Amino acid sequence: MDISKLIVNTQLNDSSPYYLQIATIIKAKIDDGSLTVGDKLPSERELALLFKVSRTTAINAYRHLEKLSYIHIRKGSGTYVRDKYALQVKSTEIPWPQLLKPYIQPSMATLMSELLVNNVGDDKISLDAGMPDPNYYPINVFNKLQVDFFPKLNPRDFGHIPVHGYQPLRHTITEMLGSEGVKCHCDDVIILSGSQQGLYLSARVLIEPGDYVIIQAPTYLGAIQVFQSLGARILSLPEGNSFPFEILEDYLTRYRPKLMYCIPSFHNPNGNTITIEDRKRLIQLAARYRLAILEDDPYSKLYYEDIPPLSLKALDTYGGVIYMSTFSKILMPGLRLGYMVAQPAFINRIILEKQYVDLHSSNISQWLLNLFITEGYLEKHLKKMRTIYKNRRNAMAEYLSYSLKAKLSFQVPKGGFYMWCKINERFSSTKLLQEALKVGVSFIPGEGFYSTSENNQELRLCFSQHNQKTIIEGISRLEKATGRLSKFKLSNPKRNVKPII
Amino acid sequence: MDISKLIVNTQLNDSSPYYLQIATIIKAKIDDGSLTVGDKLPSERELALLFKVSRTTAINAYRHLEKLSYIHIRKGSGTYVRDKYALQVKSTEIPWPQLLKPYIQPSMATLMSELLVNNVGDDKISLDAGMPDPNYYPINVFNKLQVDFFPKLNPRDFGHIPVHGYQPLRHTITEMLGSEGVKCHCDDVIILSGSQQGLYLSARVLIEPGDYVIIQAPTYLGAIQVFQSLGARILSLPEGNSFPFEILEDYLTRYRPKLMYCIPSFHNPNGNTITIEDRKRLIQLAARYRLAILEDDPYSKLYYEDIPPLSLKALDTYGGVIYMSTFSKILMPGLRLGYMVAQPAFINRIILEKQYVDLHSSNISQWLLNLFITEGYLEKHLKKMRTIYKNRRNAMAEYLSYSLKAKLSFQVPKGGFYMWCKINERFSSTKLLQEALKVGVSFIPGEGFYSTSENNQELRLCFSQHNQKTIIEGISRLEKATGRLSKFKLSNPKRNVKPII
Repeated sequence: MDISKLIVNTQLNDSSPYYLQIATIIKAKIDDGSLTVGDKLPSERELALLFKVSRTTAINAYRHLEKLSYIHIRKGSGTYVRDKYALQVKSTEIPWPQLLKPYIQPSMATLMSELLVNNVGDDKISLDAGMPDPNYYPINVFNKLQVDFFPKLNPRDFGHIPVHGYQPLRHTITEMLGSEGVKCHCDDVIILSGSQQGLYLSARVLIEPGDYVIIQAPTYLGAIQVFQSLGARILSLPEGNSFPFEILEDYLTRYRPKLMYCIPSFHNPNGNTITIEDRKRLIQLAARYRLAILEDDPYSKLYYEDIPPLSLKALDTYGGVIYMSTFSKILMPGLRLGYMVAQPAFINRIILEKQYVDLHSSNISQWLLNLFITEGYLEKHLKKMRTIYKNRRNAMAEYLSYSLKAKLSFQVPKGGFYMWCKINERFSSTKLLQEALKVGVSFIPGEGFYSTSENNQELRLCFSQHNQKTIIEGISRLEKATGRLSKFKLSNPKRNVKPII
Repeated sequence: MDISKLIVNTQLNDSSPYYLQIATIIKAKIDDGSLTVGDKLPSERELALLFKVSRTTAINAYRHLEKLSYIHIRKGSGTYVRDKYALQVKSTEIPWPQLLKPYIQPSMATLMSELLVNNVGDDKISLDAGMPDPNYYPINVFNKLQVDFFPKLNPRDFGHIPVHGYQPLRHTITEMLGSEGVKCHCDDVIILSGSQQGLYLSARVLIEPGDYVIIQAPTYLGAIQVFQSLGARILSLPEGNSFPFEILEDYLTRYRPKLMYCIPSFHNPNGNTITIEDRKRLIQLAARYRLAILEDDPYSKLYYEDIPPLSLKALDTYGGVIYMSTFSKILMPGLRLGYMVAQPAFINRIILEKQYVDLHSSNISQWLLNLFITEGYLEKHLKKMRTIYKNRRNAMAEYLSYSLKAKLSFQVPKGGFYMWCKINERFSSTKLLQEALKVGVSFIPGEGFYSTSENNQELRLCFSQHNQKTIIEGISRLEKATGRLSKFKLSNPKRNVKPII
């Protein structure tokens, strides 16, 4: 079918990636009936010509529509409009889109999961995903531990274990928490399949559609997605020089929110750390309003100056802090292990929910991780990584100051993985990403860390994944991309409406 | 407080474990205001005397009430009625029970998770949990594979991988499925953290409160729990000599159920296998009514006579079969790995949901499992285990026939792990379990496999965990327990109402 007639006067703009815009346009034509079930769509090459974009962009637009079940790509035959509502069609296929529960797909979810996976290989320098450097994954130590301790292994350790985790590991983590000022019983600690699972389970047992959840703005993308997917209404606490207690108290009286999600140390994405005074005041306020706090603490052991203050959990006077952390940032994400500690009434409910989700986390990972900690390797590894990451942070900060000072402003974080930058010129970070990808460097546009899409001139650069030389090369590519854009101007940076698809 | 006055005329009966009955009685007194916040309860010893039960039963009753947040056990001080509704009390603690989402706790959930964990050690013979024999977990092979292949390991394999799993493992499983008649694309296969996760995710994306789900009755406990926890209404298909197509069709026209959960081969708990003719007819009917089928297939590779018929997925003409299987039964549960294959429209939604739940499953397990299969160890292991389990099945069947023929009837299953027995005398299986535990043998009472609690004279014996000698000893203990009960009579086996707590 010749769809060119249908898209007269359609212009692509800078508000979102081109592939999404193209997909939105085609989707609208299917929704309004201009295109109907069985219509053959142009080839990828034709689509690219039609919109004056690259073939890859055209392919991505179709892949996106296929994911949404709007089209059907039949290899060797062509691309067809699909029966999204299934009723109109005498198909013998089961109408999955009708059977599936309605859901809210957070706008950045697809983009982000693609970013996480597609950024490996070639000459591209990835400053996007917040991961440790794979070259320093302690896999040699894990291998050695497996070889050394295998003869002592009890086969039953590879059967079913309690839902809340392998007992020796829970014990080890309880001791570790104790040394950090968190006094708890080993049965109040639950081992999770990564801290993402802690986020999910907490949200599952607490949030009903319409409930209010407070987040720092910006904050970790995955948290916003989980809260939104469960129908929560998000209240944003703007991050700034001081903690916004007035706004928080206003939210507490006005909306009676159930939960606040908070990353107090070396915040993702902005690197901030809440001071000890503000932590105490936050706990007082939360206790007064019976506000539960989900404290996410993946980075506090990755400090490059002073050790960060006591965790909110260590200061918890009212039993309302749910503390969780992960080994994904300090060791390696593939372990898929994190942990949570909270009051028994909360943890018991989490255990019940986890039983439904996966019975318990992988025993092999838990057994090896416990050995890694008890044999003293974690401390050594952390010491080494702190030096390495500190040097990388310094290299990035220095080279950013040297080459992009006028165009980007940023603060040097005292720990963690991220440099949070603001664009001083009039172009958006999404536009910058498009240019950056062309010269082989990637980052995450700031709007991915907000529940609204107003802030489109920020970006997060991650300095953990590459050595200093590569980081400098990455920043110099970013400088090139920025240079290309400086001549353009952003039409109206605050009014760009993001298409929702 | 002297609660003995409050419980005059209260008799324990055989309908459920004593600790649950005691907990229910105390709970009712708190709910109706006879006991109020801060009241001190009798010591465990006093409670045991009061109800004429063991001290362990008294402890369990209190532990259960503590889990429900009804009481507070203060070490060294005593046990107190707690502020369940929190509002009446000037506590500075956060009122978790109020904040948590209301939920349905399936009645057997607590009992079962305790059974699964507490049955190790001592002289007790466990014929309850359906697990492989730990002595045959192939941990030596896994260790060897790790040692041999470690030098070839790419560190990036221990970073983040796609949500739907480690690509080489998905590829291997796609080939395995192909050899079993299930033609699918590698991207339509998702690796799960055990098949429990497949159950959970499928239910999460399909079921809304009030939706109807068809199950075989009896069926796997964990499935009933997940469906009920999400608010599904359960329609039971009675298991019998032939597949109940008339009842199924009646359900389909009358209730328009969304999903049928089915274990077609070596059913848990009753060992039945649906014939090829009935499978085809089931698919025809499901296609006509657009009924989605969740096919759970943990046991089909554990056949002791003929290979079972093609899976429902292999016969699927309408894209409505969601197939899942696990490595927990054929290898070891601690791997926490299973897989699912279905139409892209369904799998894509599952992937999105899994991203929220745990990002992806443990890389170490996936890497090792892929090596285990591709190096040819899975086939060898299955061959060995089939012989071992067949001998155990035979031993159990022979000794049951020899010693308990009059009291229990059963069919010999052609595969899987279970012997499903019916009590021919007038006592319930829960009562038998209580006696059996006293002589050191355990099993699962049949009512755990039903969504209603009518069927209380069936039991499941698992023959996979122990060698023939131990199985025979277990059955002879069961004979002893049965003998003790034969003198008692069950008052009215069909009218026992189970307390819901």
